[in-house]
Amino acid sequence: MTEINSIGIVQSNTVYFDSSLTLKSGEVLPQFHLVYETYGTLNADKSNAVIICHALSGNHHVAGKYAETDKNAGWWDNLIGPNKPLDTNKFFVIGLNNLGGCHGSFGPSSINPATNQPFGASFPIVTVEDWVNSQARLLAYLGISQLAAVVGGSLGGMQALQWTIAYPDLVRHALVIASAPNLTAQNIAFNEVARQAIMTDPEFHAGDYYAYNTVPRRGLRIARMLGHITYLSDDAMGEKFGRKLKDTIKYGFDVEFEMESYLRYQGDKFAGEFDANTYLRMTRALDYYDPALEFDNDLSAALKVAKAQFLVVSFTSDWRFSPARSREIVKALLDNELTVSYAEVTAAHGHDAFLMPDAHYHAILRSYLQKIEV
Amino acid sequence: MTEINSIGIVQSNTVYFDSSLTLKSGEVLPQFHLVYETYGTLNADKSNAVIICHALSGNHHVAGKYAETDKNAGWWDNLIGPNKPLDTNKFFVIGLNNLGGCHGSFGPSSINPATNQPFGASFPIVTVEDWVNSQARLLAYLGISQLAAVVGGSLGGMQALQWTIAYPDLVRHALVIASAPNLTAQNIAFNEVARQAIMTDPEFHAGDYYAYNTVPRRGLRIARMLGHITYLSDDAMGEKFGRKLKDTIKYGFDVEFEMESYLRYQGDKFAGEFDANTYLRMTRALDYYDPALEFDNDLSAALKVAKAQFLVVSFTSDWRFSPARSREIVKALLDNELTVSYAEVTAAHGHDAFLMPDAHYHAILRSYLQKIEV
Repeated sequence: MTEINSIGIVQSNTVYFDSSLTLKSGEVLPQFHLVYETYGTLNADKSNAVIICHALSGNHHVAGKYAETDKNAGWWDNLIGPNKPLDTNKFFVIGLNNLGGCHGSFGPSSINPATNQPFGASFPIVTVEDWVNSQARLLAYLGISQLAAVVGGSLGGMQALQWTIAYPDLVRHALVIASAPNLTAQNIAFNEVARQAIMTDPEFHAGDYYAYNTVPRRGLRIARMLGHITYLSDDAMGEKFGRKLKDTIKYGFDVEFEMESYLRYQGDKFAGEFDANTYLRMTRALDYYDPALEFDNDLSAALKVAKAQFLVVSFTSDWRFSPARSREIVKALLDNELTVSYAEVTAAHGHDAFLMPDAHYHAILRSYLQKIEV
Repeated sequence: MTEINSIGIVQSNTVYFDSSLTLKSGEVLPQFHLVYETYGTLNADKSNAVIICHALSGNHHVAGKYAETDKNAGWWDNLIGPNKPLDTNKFFVIGLNNLGGCHGSFGPSSINPATNQPFGASFPIVTVEDWVNSQARLLAYLGISQLAAVVGGSLGGMQALQWTIAYPDLVRHALVIASAPNLTAQNIAFNEVARQAIMTDPEFHAGDYYAYNTVPRRGLRIARMLGHITYLSDDAMGEKFGRKLKDTIKYGFDVEFEMESYLRYQGDKFAGEFDANTYLRMTRALDYYDPALEFDNDLSAALKVAKAQFLVVSFTSDWRFSPARSREIVKALLDNELTVSYAEVTAAHGHDAFLMPDAHYHAILRSYLQKIEV
């Protein structure tokens, strides 16, 4: 049975772009394609479009199901649908898989027409700026000249922020959730450990594992296990797992604690689904993003061009993208006399809180989105 | 030139025990040996002995040098020596390499007399309790019937705590530094990621890599990189490395940030020095230690037998063994009407602070140790 307020059955589309895209690295993509989904209906004056920017392991399947029998709905289905906080009766919502992704968009596992082999290691590094530029192409293709809102959490929030810098006239509202204006040294460090786990996996073959019919599963598994630690708060882990044992102590290296069981399960699952080259590129995009860098580390100067109105949301227990980092964004927006609402949500779930249907959090989003005129 | 107040040139000794040791797991070691060092002079009534319990990657070489030309002194040389906070003019200090270690004590790389091959995977799991029991054997061998103090940081602090439970009459003072009465779920999780990195390294060969003339360097490297993130605070990393680049951005996966360079260096260095099987066992000992477990999770009940006086020290920026965990120990000691001094030191360096010569921290240790009567 379809859940009440679910957007229901959805389908994905692919758009091919034949005009070149110059990346921040200087490399030029002669062509690329993006897979995307849309929910709701674009209104007559095309003023109700909202784009959802995904985070590290996200994709275009944001809401709804492909078939009634699907076990899981899209990754932000709790937020998006008829009468949900991001109401598809009002908004036309666009989800896409980022450039360099592994869910259908142009990425490292795509076939290089020049060689008829997957790009692998030769697929370029993509940045938050490149993603936003490619998303602007998608908007143009859909005939939309201005977004009612851009919405993103974590790495998605960086894209939302970048939208307001790169295309100030194309964005009326930006919802920047559980994000930061750049990564801290600690976050770069976690990314580096994850990358080194993947890149030193003998099955990685310098990124060309497709040609060897292998997958660097071990490395990807370690990367994901580590990721999960940083997505949850210490308290949330304590509450969910604590020191609970699976059984009596065995004095060995098999699973003893439920915490271990959870991590192994998450790691194994991810390693069977996700592309390692995409993972590497997503983490590098996170590392590199730093709009203040070319403004002498002055974020306010970097945001001088922005015109959007902002909702910035952080979560108290998020130690990966802490509230202090969101407040840096808020401060820089205020320096530019931009309209910004800021909510620091008390939530126990750490960084993952942005994906959860916390009542207070959702009420804030609902209230903000309701006031957007379309 | 020898540093003023250095203990100077030291040497290590090995003691062989031929009577069996029953481990917490139930396994029995028919014999074992420990490598140790001593600094200072045991006084006539043998009342001035202090044992130093090491943490995850520590060893018996706590202070001094083996030769004038040694680049580095022992790992806690800043604390221990003539006129240093732990004054070797007053105390007879004992450092040892724990059972299961890889610096000369009986461990996984030791030769199994039954097979004439290294033990490898067959070396049993050792626990904090086992370490303390083996340390008590060392004391008896040295003819010492009571310790003036047991001192340990981190995992070493767990051993100090365990000394007061297992041998209440043998310990007059326990200095429990940057420690905890057990690991949180998050800490177990970090240990598990480290172990999985080692154990899934193809060169691990189920722990019997010695026979293959290989070393699971990749896994050990990842484990150590991850460890270093958790030893430092986010702030300390920010201050030391921040987002500093090695050079101009190259848009690739080689080192871009100084943070990455530091982690790779630390990981490589450790992987060339440390034994993977020992690393696995040290992390497991950390996971398992939980004296309250058999007292219905009541730490106060677990510490009821203790008689020592305590100094408990924590560091404000230590997120691996946070001050809150030290306060749990203090609370349980007070419940038992034991004499306890507690210092929460404001320090930026995270868990690593316990190894650093912070003036305030060292003054506290000096003051406490000066008052111990010998």
